[in-house]
Amino acid sequence: MSETVKYVLPESEIPKTWYNIAADLPTPPPPVLHPGTHQPIGPDDLAAIFPMSLIAQEVSTEREIEIPGPVREIYRQWRPAPLFRARRLEHALGTPARIFYKYEGVSPAGSHKPNTAVAQAFYNKDAGISRITTETGAGQWGSALAFSGALFGIEIDVYMVRVSFEQKPYRRALMESYGARCVPSPSEETEAGREILARDPDSRGSLGIAISEAVEQAAKRADTNYALGSVLNHVLLHQTVIGLVAMRQMDMADVYPDVIIGCTGGGSNFAGIAFPYIGEKLRGGRDVRIIAVEPAACPTLTRGRYAYDFGDTAHLTPLVKMHTLGSTFVPPGFHSGGLRYHGMAPLVSHLQELGLITSTAFKQIEVFAAGVQFARAEGILPAPEANHAVKAVIDEAIRCRVDGVPRTILFNLCGHGHFDMQAYMDYFAGRLEDRAYDEAELAMALAGLPSIAA
Amino acid sequence: MSETVKYVLPESEIPKTWYNIAADLPTPPPPVLHPGTHQPIGPDDLAAIFPMSLIAQEVSTEREIEIPGPVREIYRQWRPAPLFRARRLEHALGTPARIFYKYEGVSPAGSHKPNTAVAQAFYNKDAGISRITTETGAGQWGSALAFSGALFGIEIDVYMVRVSFEQKPYRRALMESYGARCVPSPSEETEAGREILARDPDSRGSLGIAISEAVEQAAKRADTNYALGSVLNHVLLHQTVIGLVAMRQMDMADVYPDVIIGCTGGGSNFAGIAFPYIGEKLRGGRDVRIIAVEPAACPTLTRGRYAYDFGDTAHLTPLVKMHTLGSTFVPPGFHSGGLRYHGMAPLVSHLQELGLITSTAFKQIEVFAAGVQFARAEGILPAPEANHAVKAVIDEAIRCRVDGVPRTILFNLCGHGHFDMQAYMDYFAGRLEDRAYDEAELAMALAGLPSIAA
Repeated sequence: MSETVKYVLPESEIPKTWYNIAADLPTPPPPVLHPGTHQPIGPDDLAAIFPMSLIAQEVSTEREIEIPGPVREIYRQWRPAPLFRARRLEHALGTPARIFYKYEGVSPAGSHKPNTAVAQAFYNKDAGISRITTETGAGQWGSALAFSGALFGIEIDVYMVRVSFEQKPYRRALMESYGARCVPSPSEETEAGREILARDPDSRGSLGIAISEAVEQAAKRADTNYALGSVLNHVLLHQTVIGLVAMRQMDMADVYPDVIIGCTGGGSNFAGIAFPYIGEKLRGGRDVRIIAVEPAACPTLTRGRYAYDFGDTAHLTPLVKMHTLGSTFVPPGFHSGGLRYHGMAPLVSHLQELGLITSTAFKQIEVFAAGVQFARAEGILPAPEANHAVKAVIDEAIRCRVDGVPRTILFNLCGHGHFDMQAYMDYFAGRLEDRAYDEAELAMALAGLPSIAA
Repeated sequence: MSETVKYVLPESEIPKTWYNIAADLPTPPPPVLHPGTHQPIGPDDLAAIFPMSLIAQEVSTEREIEIPGPVREIYRQWRPAPLFRARRLEHALGTPARIFYKYEGVSPAGSHKPNTAVAQAFYNKDAGISRITTETGAGQWGSALAFSGALFGIEIDVYMVRVSFEQKPYRRALMESYGARCVPSPSEETEAGREILARDPDSRGSLGIAISEAVEQAAKRADTNYALGSVLNHVLLHQTVIGLVAMRQMDMADVYPDVIIGCTGGGSNFAGIAFPYIGEKLRGGRDVRIIAVEPAACPTLTRGRYAYDFGDTAHLTPLVKMHTLGSTFVPPGFHSGGLRYHGMAPLVSHLQELGLITSTAFKQIEVFAAGVQFARAEGILPAPEANHAVKAVIDEAIRCRVDGVPRTILFNLCGHGHFDMQAYMDYFAGRLEDRAYDEAELAMALAGLPSIAA
């Protein structure tokens, strides 16, 4: 009952390079387009808000990209993160499946987000940048960047979706503890924010609006850049440190996964665990089934259209081809703020189009039930986002029991739920609802997608 | 700036035994007395609420006590916990001091408390116990025991000080997520609780009352035992796993501490880091200065009397000789619930009487300022309790700068502050107060100590 099966690696085994899946893709993803001209953008179009080093990573097709020494140094604070076998959960489910999970909640911010936040802070510092703006929903990303800013001496301004700013004061307090400035969005500080407030003084905000504000602020000051916590290629690249080490740890356990599962909001933690395995498969390695799990209330991969769209509400960002619900789509409220984004990482979308991954969606009540079952078996309380992956894992493990097949399942437990206790309280009190999105609103948002000549 | 200096050990190096300081004491601590007869108690007096295995540990003078296999198995989920050198804090302070910290916030419950909670759950399970009662203030201990109960399949009933139950719903939610039942204390469930409520229906509760309720419940059912999260010898014993590994890690760093610092409430995390070093000193090893740090608002070691006293309000517990403010003393409210106990572990008290440790006290505002400085330098936000140790460390490091002496400082960072964000918010908003205890109340509480013939 009490058995712990953990695989760790010595620090010397923290990878020296990230894995860039662009090197192994059979076809490249569609180009990123300029929002005005609809022509493919060049590096200079992004130079106002990103350092050249990150722009280079965004378009690189090199398979291995070096992790800078100072970034590896900071990774060492919590990496190599452990891989666990969920023996107690297996027993509880009576399944012949072998369930493994990589645990990213051991970082000081409690999630996988510092893997890229630290890297982005480093490259910006190196480029002489003294201030970074960003947006945050639930606050996992904002607190990871605040943490990284503190370590590198960079000012961090976080535009936090107003409804989260008010409902999640503790995440905000964590950002402020690290010295970041946290602004409820929409705010009076930006044109984008003022415009929204003029139309709707009571606007509760959205991730799309907060991105517009952060990008606008970064674009107008030379000492200031912008950072995004998911979606972009370089962000997914940095997260591959998760999967690269998981592969080595699975080798230690002498197993190869039959199924890999991750939750998807913008796609970064999913990419982190899955891309190194997909790359191996693309280079002629073993086949593995890969499942992206998303909330039924914001079903980007399962119900969105694969089309060019903006990343933000004010349409300041370039156009990227991705699975999207439309940049005007506002999902109903639910307790996984990290998964409430209208779009999906272009690379993840491209992989689904290529048939290399599949996706599925769950409602929040069943997702919380899975998370509580996991916590009582394994002792770790997952973040609500991660509960989506847990739900898919439990379902898969039960199928293994029914089929009598001992499949090996690997998933990414991307963060702990210590900042999400209100959600668990609501779950226990029976106050959670499975609110569906509005079909008419989705249709309208999709109809409003920019029309791009193919 | 970005350097991380971390010392880990392979899992095979998790100690196989705890260290029992009773083996090395020049004089034994005074005996524990029966509350009715005032005569030394025997094992049978405790058998109604503790398993015999823990009672044996309570009185053992064996130097090394074996850690059971299943307990080591669970320790492996987060142990060996890392030792860090606080290089970035050293830089920020401009000190020649070498600052090391053992970090216990990596456990699933976020503090050092599972070190003993897991052990206590194991021994109770082994004794056929199916239910454990306990008390909790801030909730660190309660959630650690809830976690352990989930792993061993033991029902956990937590009597939570009513004011914390209402002010800290998230800690309660964590306990409930692990399947524990959480009862605001005083409650109608016990005689002790009903008596308090009859006198004061609005009682906000205290740790002393909650202990009375938990002990009463455990005493009246054969399938139920009681567990305490600090103070008792066997609890301190289990925590020595902290210091035993820290010693090995300090060896790896090729240093020996000149100063060891820990915060003290009941004394368990302090004992964990300090006892193995004190033992080495008692056996003729190197000298090391050891400092217990407590809140000025509940200054047990610095202002309490060394006398026999009860551990609880209803006077159900045996009498132990300890530094105490009197069992009726109620400290003013402050944001370190884990340090708001009227007494101190008898072993820690005894060591202070022997001159083997010293103690100091700080007010909460200066303590939070230290915690924020630490978080911005090291990236880890400490629990308010741990901030007491951090404050003493920073002061010591500044003295090293003034004296130009590069002392080596080791401290225990006993938990993270993710469940204490309200306290940080209050600090940032200038809402924290340094409320002093009432001198007249303290005098009265001390005057009310039981009179025991020497």
